[in-house]
Amino acid sequence: MKIAVDGMGGDHAPKEIIRGCIQAINEIKDIEIFLTGQRDLIEEELKKYQFDHTKFHAVYTSEVITNEDKPVQAIRKKKDSSMVVGLNLLKEKKVDGFISAGNTGALLAGSLFRLGRIKGIDRPAIAATYPTTKGISLLVDAGANAECKPRNLLEFGLMGSIYVQKVLGKKDPSVGLANIGIEEGKGTQLIKESFELFQKTDLNFHGNAEVRDLPTGIVDVIVCDGFVGNVILKLTEGVAMTIMSMLKGVFTKNFMSKIGAMILKGSLKEFKKNMDYTEYGGAPLLGVNGAVVKAHGSSNGKAIKNAIKQAKAFVEGEVLEKINQEIGRIGDENNG
Amino acid sequence: MKIAVDGMGGDHAPKEIIRGCIQAINEIKDIEIFLTGQRDLIEEELKKYQFDHTKFHAVYTSEVITNEDKPVQAIRKKKDSSMVVGLNLLKEKKVDGFISAGNTGALLAGSLFRLGRIKGIDRPAIAATYPTTKGISLLVDAGANAECKPRNLLEFGLMGSIYVQKVLGKKDPSVGLANIGIEEGKGTQLIKESFELFQKTDLNFHGNAEVRDLPTGIVDVIVCDGFVGNVILKLTEGVAMTIMSMLKGVFTKNFMSKIGAMILKGSLKEFKKNMDYTEYGGAPLLGVNGAVVKAHGSSNGKAIKNAIKQAKAFVEGEVLEKINQEIGRIGDENNG
Repeated sequence: MKIAVDGMGGDHAPKEIIRGCIQAINEIKDIEIFLTGQRDLIEEELKKYQFDHTKFHAVYTSEVITNEDKPVQAIRKKKDSSMVVGLNLLKEKKVDGFISAGNTGALLAGSLFRLGRIKGIDRPAIAATYPTTKGISLLVDAGANAECKPRNLLEFGLMGSIYVQKVLGKKDPSVGLANIGIEEGKGTQLIKESFELFQKTDLNFHGNAEVRDLPTGIVDVIVCDGFVGNVILKLTEGVAMTIMSMLKGVFTKNFMSKIGAMILKGSLKEFKKNMDYTEYGGAPLLGVNGAVVKAHGSSNGKAIKNAIKQAKAFVEGEVLEKINQEIGRIGDENNG
Repeated sequence: MKIAVDGMGGDHAPKEIIRGCIQAINEIKDIEIFLTGQRDLIEEELKKYQFDHTKFHAVYTSEVITNEDKPVQAIRKKKDSSMVVGLNLLKEKKVDGFISAGNTGALLAGSLFRLGRIKGIDRPAIAATYPTTKGISLLVDAGANAECKPRNLLEFGLMGSIYVQKVLGKKDPSVGLANIGIEEGKGTQLIKESFELFQKTDLNFHGNAEVRDLPTGIVDVIVCDGFVGNVILKLTEGVAMTIMSMLKGVFTKNFMSKIGAMILKGSLKEFKKNMDYTEYGGAPLLGVNGAVVKAHGSSNGKAIKNAIKQAKAFVEGEVLEKINQEIGRIGDENNG
């Protein structure tokens, strides 16, 4: 399995990206890494590690797409960037999957331009893993499409359901519409119309999923437009971070509270692990013709390694093939 | 100051409602309560308390609007309900303000029908207090209008800004659009167009407020459509509750962790108080012709007392008069 990795994307590139690649080579079976990026930086960083060199290939590039770049422009102009070159490797089938922790908009635009959409998919989406007390839910769309039509949400639900089955290994995953109440008829016009479309499919449709219940894993696939999806992701992160920092204040308030916190150290560590995004890899782009995974911008080595593991499962699960098969059927039902 | 209170609305009515009213009479200066509700239940409950009877007036009603009732229908048909009778007292100026912990949709519809809108306000909104690490932000709209136009968001911002000045006592409050990024041009069409309208006003416009930063109190007034606002409120509550219940697991895991938790008890109590909605009263309806406050459905006595205090500040701050004055000015600017 050959995975290309954007060596220059992300807050801690190339250092943590390379660390993750080496970890992947050393820990994951049957993996070969194609790292794109600037020669001098890569060579300098690689000196730190011991690894099987037959499993690592550097592809040197001269340009970098930053978070400040405008996505479409950047993809068109920076043809020798680590991101565009990585996408080309995937397009030319020199690799099986591609990972980037860089500019999300550029990765999405680049995937659309270079790889194209799966036939029958109107709008590709970003599918984010959403940690819950029951494990992981998949949130689609996490931010690719701010404005959506009901048909788009239906596609998100179908693609998400397939991904959860094939990559996360959950049979017959439940699919719910993120909403402000569970009763049919709640929410926006978009949700009401999408509700009707979902009812006509053979997806395991849960109906409306009250946003208050999302953190407890009420559904396996959370469907919403990209604006609401991004609000859900970022607010969850913001609330969790705020509470954690308030707790830190509690634990370090005085001598006695420090002792209390010390006693709790082990249990708290486990608790933090549950909320740690680095455990869950990245966010697959669903609906483009290729296995592309967006890693978190602030990914460390472990997060990159897990994103590589995830891309491998994405390819092995034949997610794209399955979406190709199923999308026709949904289309027929909704046109018929 | 005369405040009417819906004695039958809320999960713990009439018991906790009456408890809150008695607390208000005993603790808040210059307050008279008009409690609407079923005679036998009120009389039974009142036996428990010592209070100044000249400050308490029961207004007996025969019907109750439940959470299962359809708002518009309920308001039209249940004319002798505790909610409709309370709104009538306000309309007839027998009281200065009205509080209900009952059916939110019905309270909104009833306020619109019985009190009407402030001239120049297209869509009244629910303004919720949003607890942050810096104190309180005001979230408008918290759920009254699922679909909005830019003009609506502008009105929410103006009304919210006035409320925060006059009731929460904050000078020149900052007003931000809840969004998935801070750059101008981020988000939905609605937000982009609203951004332009806000820029033309003399409000203290912060620009886009990244939802991740809302829990840290990045702006004083959070403006959004009612769907997104309700998502923000409910998800914040859901994430906080989930983390608290996970923490409870950490604290009771074994003998040693119980000791650790016991040492931290005092600091944790303070921490919980910060996140306790009962401290903050209720959600004012902004844009209707009357000081109406929606208390949380699960309000206990303390929450009701704080909602009464809030309604008093709402009236004393002359919020409605100020909205009346300011709305014309905003209208002119945007039409001119």
